[in-house]
Amino acid sequence: MATRTEIASLGEFGLIDHLTRNNEIRHASTLVAVGDDAAVLDHLGKQIVVTTDLLIEGVHFDLMYSPLTHLGYKSIIVNLSDVYAMNATPAQVTVSLGISNRFSVEALEELYEGIYAACEKYNVDLVGGDTTTSPKGLIISVTAIGEVNADNFVKRDGAKKGDLICVSGDLGASYLGLLLMEREKKIFLESPGVQPDLENQDYILRRLLKPEARKDMIAFFEEQQIVPTSMMDISDGLSSELLHICKQSNVGCLIYEDKIPVADQTREFAFKLGLDPTACALSGGEDYELLFTLKQEDYENITLNEQISVIGYITEPEAGAHIITRSDKKHPITAQGWNAFK
Amino acid sequence: MATRTEIASLGEFGLIDHLTRNNEIRHASTLVAVGDDAAVLDHLGKQIVVTTDLLIEGVHFDLMYSPLTHLGYKSIIVNLSDVYAMNATPAQVTVSLGISNRFSVEALEELYEGIYAACEKYNVDLVGGDTTTSPKGLIISVTAIGEVNADNFVKRDGAKKGDLICVSGDLGASYLGLLLMEREKKIFLESPGVQPDLENQDYILRRLLKPEARKDMIAFFEEQQIVPTSMMDISDGLSSELLHICKQSNVGCLIYEDKIPVADQTREFAFKLGLDPTACALSGGEDYELLFTLKQEDYENITLNEQISVIGYITEPEAGAHIITRSDKKHPITAQGWNAFK
Repeated sequence: MATRTEIASLGEFGLIDHLTRNNEIRHASTLVAVGDDAAVLDHLGKQIVVTTDLLIEGVHFDLMYSPLTHLGYKSIIVNLSDVYAMNATPAQVTVSLGISNRFSVEALEELYEGIYAACEKYNVDLVGGDTTTSPKGLIISVTAIGEVNADNFVKRDGAKKGDLICVSGDLGASYLGLLLMEREKKIFLESPGVQPDLENQDYILRRLLKPEARKDMIAFFEEQQIVPTSMMDISDGLSSELLHICKQSNVGCLIYEDKIPVADQTREFAFKLGLDPTACALSGGEDYELLFTLKQEDYENITLNEQISVIGYITEPEAGAHIITRSDKKHPITAQGWNAFK
Repeated sequence: MATRTEIASLGEFGLIDHLTRNNEIRHASTLVAVGDDAAVLDHLGKQIVVTTDLLIEGVHFDLMYSPLTHLGYKSIIVNLSDVYAMNATPAQVTVSLGISNRFSVEALEELYEGIYAACEKYNVDLVGGDTTTSPKGLIISVTAIGEVNADNFVKRDGAKKGDLICVSGDLGASYLGLLLMEREKKIFLESPGVQPDLENQDYILRRLLKPEARKDMIAFFEEQQIVPTSMMDISDGLSSELLHICKQSNVGCLIYEDKIPVADQTREFAFKLGLDPTACALSGGEDYELLFTLKQEDYENITLNEQISVIGYITEPEAGAHIITRSDKKHPITAQGWNAFK
């Protein structure tokens, strides 16, 4: 039987010591990490990027199908994705946890295993946090800090008429992974004996449970000396993010349905559920791909990168935001992305 | 009747826009604030300090007696206090909120009023955050970022034998404010018609509900060219913090009961409840005063500052941590500070 160590047996400080005892420091810029009032960082000559996300059980994750290791991993990834979306390189993270007493020390170790795995893979230092009780459910608050060369950061407001609209990777997979898990959860709750049917669904499941952030894109931009005119990560769905860029850059956009990248497995599972794969790509959240705009002269530099799809171009603001469907019809784009308050 | 605007009527992004529409930027180092994937900061030539705190309803605050404006103010203060405790000056904060649907937009405006008041008073910029639903209760996660001149930061591990142990202000007031509010809450729940008896208790109440951070101490150190050998803020109680410094600096300590600063109102209310004021000062948390150690040669520089009390000195590690009482007895110091997991 698995050991269960009660958190109370370690106390707050004992718990922090225990969970951070193998914390490795990877950056010379990390002068003080976990264990003092604050971390101290030295970013001489670089600009600093800061982003934060709050993940709450029952809102952002369901522990019935999210293994704790994956959840720890994902909680770091969603923040690193925001740092990359600024064209910056993440260097440090802080992790605060609110924990109810149904969690054991072993459960938190699993969570931290995922946190450390993400820190290692993305070369970031864990430098602090806060650990406290929660009356109900698990709460994870992560802040990520990144570096960017002076004035190389990319905001959402720089898209100009004629710019190419690009996305990395493929879209909609995480949303279909979520629908799959919810279907299996419902079947399990109704008939606990039935084994989950997850065959050939490893791609959409991985995209949901253990997403990655597009570190490779930022490296590629640097290598090619490309600075996108605007960029953001796709956490709420392509249509919602496109409207953000249009609003903040005061431009319109035109995209083409047949250019939107959707993986085969995503498409197949969408059809199985009677859903339109394009609608899933437009509205499904949590893909953590990058949406960015480029000057037309950068087109040649990206053609060889198979991870980048050009899906349309920026127009004048009066033209609004539209999509041209496969049947050559023009529809306005509406924000159907995930809204936390609906 | 007060207006009640449902959060759902604004949506997530509308709510963030609404709450941050009057956000003022005070630092040239704040290049990008709220509204993008991340904030961008430029701290050329300074070292950066980062700290974070997670505040959960029912654990860290009780909305029955914490007005939302004060709560917003306090949520910033507790983080700034950690930045000052590094001998650094706070410059930016991020604020993430988890909100259940029992809160209206007006309630969140009150919370933000307190957040902005603290930002203004302490000259910091609000640069980002995350706003999401919470299935139950209010969750506030704040991260503060500060600056410090190269290698001027002060950790907990630098105390040396012979150093003076000092505290700012006075201790125990916030804890007695808490006992007062809990007494009044109990009376109110039993007899809702009875008016609360808070006369002459304004000091301990203010210390509980609207504490301040010791910005003045850091300014004083700079002016006097003093760099403490170790420092931390007193959030869990003097005895607990003293033991942290002893452990991390590998030293012992000796303090004197009659030197511990306790305000008259704190002392009087402690006696009224039959409590020992010294025990309250040692174990009561949330005072947000600074505990620091100084080289003996700095003594002359601090004698004129009435906000600083010298309460004892650092000893060799073998001597342990002790207090000499008013009746000249020697007792070991034990951590009775607030432990979130007990």
